Amino acid sequence: MEKEFKNLIKTRFPYLCNTRLLLAVSGGVDSMVLACLCAHAHLDFSIAHCNFMLRGEESDGDESFVRNFAEQLEVPFFTQAFQTEKYASEKGISTQMAARDLRYEWFEELRKTNRHEYILTAHHANDNLETFLINLIRGTGPEGLSGISEKNHKVIRPLLSFSRKEIEAYAAENKLEWREDSSNASDKYMRNKIRHQLVPVMMELNPQLLQSFAKTQDHLRENMDLVEDYISLLYPKLVQKDLYGYQIDLDFLKKIPSKNQILYQLLKSFRFTEWDDVYNLVDAQSGKMVFSPTHRLIRDRETLLLTERRVKTGRKHYVFEENEKFLMIPGGILRVKPVSEIGETAANKIYVAREKLNFPLVIRRWKKGDYFHPFGMKGKKKLKDYFRDEKFSIPEKEDTWILCSGEEIVWIVNHRADDRFKVEPETREILQVSFG
Amino acid sequence: MEKEFKNLIKTRFPYLCNTRLLLAVSGGVDSMVLACLCAHAHLDFSIAHCNFMLRGEESDGDESFVRNFAEQLEVPFFTQAFQTEKYASEKGISTQMAARDLRYEWFEELRKTNRHEYILTAHHANDNLETFLINLIRGTGPEGLSGISEKNHKVIRPLLSFSRKEIEAYAAENKLEWREDSSNASDKYMRNKIRHQLVPVMMELNPQLLQSFAKTQDHLRENMDLVEDYISLLYPKLVQKDLYGYQIDLDFLKKIPSKNQILYQLLKSFRFTEWDDVYNLVDAQSGKMVFSPTHRLIRDRETLLLTERRVKTGRKHYVFEENEKFLMIPGGILRVKPVSEIGETAANKIYVAREKLNFPLVIRRWKKGDYFHPFGMKGKKKLKDYFRDEKFSIPEKEDTWILCSGEEIVWIVNHRADDRFKVEPETREILQVSFG
Repeated sequence: MEKEFKNLIKTRFPYLCNTRLLLAVSGGVDSMVLACLCAHAHLDFSIAHCNFMLRGEESDGDESFVRNFAEQLEVPFFTQAFQTEKYASEKGISTQMAARDLRYEWFEELRKTNRHEYILTAHHANDNLETFLINLIRGTGPEGLSGISEKNHKVIRPLLSFSRKEIEAYAAENKLEWREDSSNASDKYMRNKIRHQLVPVMMELNPQLLQSFAKTQDHLRENMDLVEDYISLLYPKLVQKDLYGYQIDLDFLKKIPSKNQILYQLLKSFRFTEWDDVYNLVDAQSGKMVFSPTHRLIRDRETLLLTERRVKTGRKHYVFEENEKFLMIPGGILRVKPVSEIGETAANKIYVAREKLNFPLVIRRWKKGDYFHPFGMKGKKKLKDYFRDEKFSIPEKEDTWILCSGEEIVWIVNHRADDRFKVEPETREILQVSFG
Repeated sequence: MEKEFKNLIKTRFPYLCNTRLLLAVSGGVDSMVLACLCAHAHLDFSIAHCNFMLRGEESDGDESFVRNFAEQLEVPFFTQAFQTEKYASEKGISTQMAARDLRYEWFEELRKTNRHEYILTAHHANDNLETFLINLIRGTGPEGLSGISEKNHKVIRPLLSFSRKEIEAYAAENKLEWREDSSNASDKYMRNKIRHQLVPVMMELNPQLLQSFAKTQDHLRENMDLVEDYISLLYPKLVQKDLYGYQIDLDFLKKIPSKNQILYQLLKSFRFTEWDDVYNLVDAQSGKMVFSPTHRLIRDRETLLLTERRVKTGRKHYVFEENEKFLMIPGGILRVKPVSEIGETAANKIYVAREKLNFPLVIRRWKKGDYFHPFGMKGKKKLKDYFRDEKFSIPEKEDTWILCSGEEIVWIVNHRADDRFKVEPETREILQVSFG
């Protein structure tokens, strides 16, 4: 295996020879073999070890084991302890995902601050196959099947074309010591079943399984890349950013075959789980929504709007007393001051006749059945129709304050004043109301 | 299961109720159950049975079994015997592929001539999973993983969301009879191992395996569709048809990430097997080639040329005697006739001074080191340089005849005459040489 490894470095990763590398070493057989191979190939490396503190004394034992190993090799050693469980529960993710995030974040930091060029990890061909099968069995999007690649930005996995068997044989030949990981990672049971019951049968059916599987994954990964290229090409026509998030143009989306897959690719990082509901929004009525823990997707006329989910704290109803000068509410400050005459007008400033108002005023969100008398118009109009005519999006409607005098609407704040409260020749006292 | 089937027809395939259907019935449990379900749902169908004549008396037994069943149901019955082995060896494909081709071809013919609207087959969820695993184990392009869909043009597979277990339970409940297929299809051993050793372990790890696998396959299929959309978008910029086949523009291809996958998708129907060699052509020297049984792909300057493979029969060397008037060679007829004066000139017609020629003339392909004296120019030029300057593609060069007098080139046939043989004032006898 040593010969093959050296050859691999020479042909595929020649640039590893003249630069500083950071080796991720857990103390397990795979990473110990990687470190040993790198030492024999005279590569210039440091060793980084994560202590996830998930297995008490055992974790600490791993750390000192790897530290001693680094001392024997006379290479720099870095270690870091992580509050993995705490991080996982704070982020609401699995311990495993937490460990992965923490590890790569720290490696990248180490890489930059200590002038290492590349990070090397000890993933091998069986890891990739097992992960593929886990994801296949659990059910997954296409990412779950495309596996990890030999090189991804600054992370290189030079053992990816070697099998577990080769690695274990090398460890035995070279009388390497290593630590067995007794962790009960959430997928450990599944991984063991796959390792001992599925993969051997598959290998019996095709002894070249790992090689042909590597090609299959290349295909899948390249397909994923193509899909991403395609979507980045469609993106400018398909998606617009607006004040509240993103607008996806349904007229355009509907013309594309496989629109579900496009939606999936666009939205995959927003933690939706009910994908069928997401896909059904394309043909749903305006106003329908689907929620993820962090976001919501709203069918709004001929678009889908993706916005952050609002935390529904804060009241929906505020009172503005007669003697008050201002009131802070979410989105801005409402100010009321007496003026001697009407000044310049603007969307965020109106003038009203004080004697027409019934204090206290009320500031609230709109509700079904609301109507007003648009300034400068005879007669009344339903708010619903006003919003429709002015093409308010759903988040915009939700965000709009309504200033009321009793049951009557005085101002659709920052949009349109009501005709009933306007200043007239006989007005005795003028109030300027502004918001912002 | 009957209820679920009726519900499926009602919700997903309501149009099956008012039209004529063609049921593919082998006599196995799956297709017998499908026929029974269709009868109970009062669908209007005929039964089609293929006799592939692969298992002698057993095949004939299947045929009469299905015929009797159709008579009991009082539905039209169609059957056809196929020379499957013969067809397979003629086409150079596996028996299994041959059977599939023959089956769908005949079904489609039956569908059209007997006014059936749709073809129904009995593929179920386990079939799809097993085929996926077979392809995964053998190694496959992404098509092999994306499986078959519930509806594809005029073929509908209404059992695709049902498991083998449900189908077998239904057969038992309804006391259906069926024929066991003893065929030794090439994948039978593999399929059995997968069915009995892999799938049960996977089901144990996820009892909802078939459902989540169906979603995974939807993803894969949609991804494939997206890739095809993308490629059809790139196609006009990437590929040009020319006289000899297709030209793939490498300047353009190189700008696209995942160019291997693009090449794979473009070329997948041309029976290449050495895909790494194909991919390497992108960075290879001009002149490099990769062969499939039917085609070859040639690196030719900044393009890849896909041409049909030539059958290398026919000589590369012909002799034209002094007393001959014409000679048929691949690509046309070479004619030589005395004329009294130079007539109109054209690319496919030259005039030479007879007394300068050494008979017999030789017609051959170009070879390294060839040079000539281009008509109207002083001095000589290497053929290699001429071809390069005139931007001959490799197949074009191979296709070009060279007319020689002894070692001297008289004519790059249909391209350029040699200056040394031109008609001059003192020429006594003029010959017109033409080709076409």
